[in-house]
Amino acid sequence: MTKAVVLLSGGLDSATTLAIARSEVSSCYALTIDYGQRHRLELEAARCVAQALGAAGHRVATFDFSWIGGSALTDRRIQVPQQPSAGIPITYVPARNTIFLALALGWAEVLNAEAIYIGANAIDYSGYPDCRPEFLDAFAQLAKLATRAGVEGKPIHIRAPLLKMPKAEIIRTGIRLGVDFALTLSCYDPDAQGRGCGTCDSCRLRAEGFRNAGVPDPTIYQPRAE
Amino acid sequence: MTKAVVLLSGGLDSATTLAIARSEVSSCYALTIDYGQRHRLELEAARCVAQALGAAGHRVATFDFSWIGGSALTDRRIQVPQQPSAGIPITYVPARNTIFLALALGWAEVLNAEAIYIGANAIDYSGYPDCRPEFLDAFAQLAKLATRAGVEGKPIHIRAPLLKMPKAEIIRTGIRLGVDFALTLSCYDPDAQGRGCGTCDSCRLRAEGFRNAGVPDPTIYQPRAE
Repeated sequence: MTKAVVLLSGGLDSATTLAIARSEVSSCYALTIDYGQRHRLELEAARCVAQALGAAGHRVATFDFSWIGGSALTDRRIQVPQQPSAGIPITYVPARNTIFLALALGWAEVLNAEAIYIGANAIDYSGYPDCRPEFLDAFAQLAKLATRAGVEGKPIHIRAPLLKMPKAEIIRTGIRLGVDFALTLSCYDPDAQGRGCGTCDSCRLRAEGFRNAGVPDPTIYQPRAE
Repeated sequence: MTKAVVLLSGGLDSATTLAIARSEVSSCYALTIDYGQRHRLELEAARCVAQALGAAGHRVATFDFSWIGGSALTDRRIQVPQQPSAGIPITYVPARNTIFLALALGWAEVLNAEAIYIGANAIDYSGYPDCRPEFLDAFAQLAKLATRAGVEGKPIHIRAPLLKMPKAEIIRTGIRLGVDFALTLSCYDPDAQGRGCGTCDSCRLRAEGFRNAGVPDPTIYQPRAE
């Protein structure tokens, strides 16, 4: 393949996804969605990662999700929980991956890209419905029908290379492909210096991943109150 | 049904769609996407239509498609053609309906709405891939898997009541349900007063629809150079 669009959040998973895409596709165009997330530092992390991994281009598209609301990540009236919850957690952003993939599809179509890469993961997936394999299959089916390229017999493929990887394997793969995880930011609620809280779902999964991978964790956490 | 999200552009088709939704659902929430379209007057038309038809709410969500480019409707370097073209026309906005439906899905999920209405039409459809029944079926399938509601067994339905209606039938249906088509704007390239060019694909289909329906056309067109 010669061209792909890669959804890049600035977190650990999407950085590894970009590294995998770079190993498979000549020109990778990173797409970051600025959706009014709590942590603006994530956008800065995405910029650093895209540059470090040699993306052919990087776009930050602004779409304000706050009018949709309903999630701790986009609605400032809802607190990020510090304990795991049963069922789909409040950090779930309604239809987020559907919206992200739809935006990537529009850009992929104009670029004549052959694939979209997304760092969705069905194992450590925090219970989000739009990280499941059946969701991604349904989107791939949609992409065949939705676009000019699809009508002309050149569907845009949806690749989710991390889908069945445990976090430790994602980390090992990233390291093998040259990802500097110190550039990435996973925490749902970092402080102004970009330091992780160490207690949200995302921090917990990340720290556990480094432990299980047996590699040093470069994440800097906020000092804890004793 | 008690709640639905209705995609409302300010054109003739989506106004009729809102009127149909209002006749079937108690509370209709109109969603207009401000996507940097050439004709800002379309947004004003959407506001008037939502109010006239008694929408329970109306949101204008801003998403700038111009960075995606590739369409005469969003890229100012590309001219709106004044003649029909073979194949998919240059007024096609890449992945537009996928993106619109994805945004509607997010809002529908937060509102606990049971359906999304879209004015897609497969007859006078100008050759857009994302107005075809198979595209809408694929999106409905996706919506079942993409959301919290779907996982909990209450999928959000996708309704396209105009899908197989000729333009004349859309117009007759709209009139029966009280749509004031003078409020709507269909032209791809109106002047500053909101008057239609009379020659673009969209103007031609609209004018023909009124002729075939045998009802007076309330559209005001730009004076033609002799």
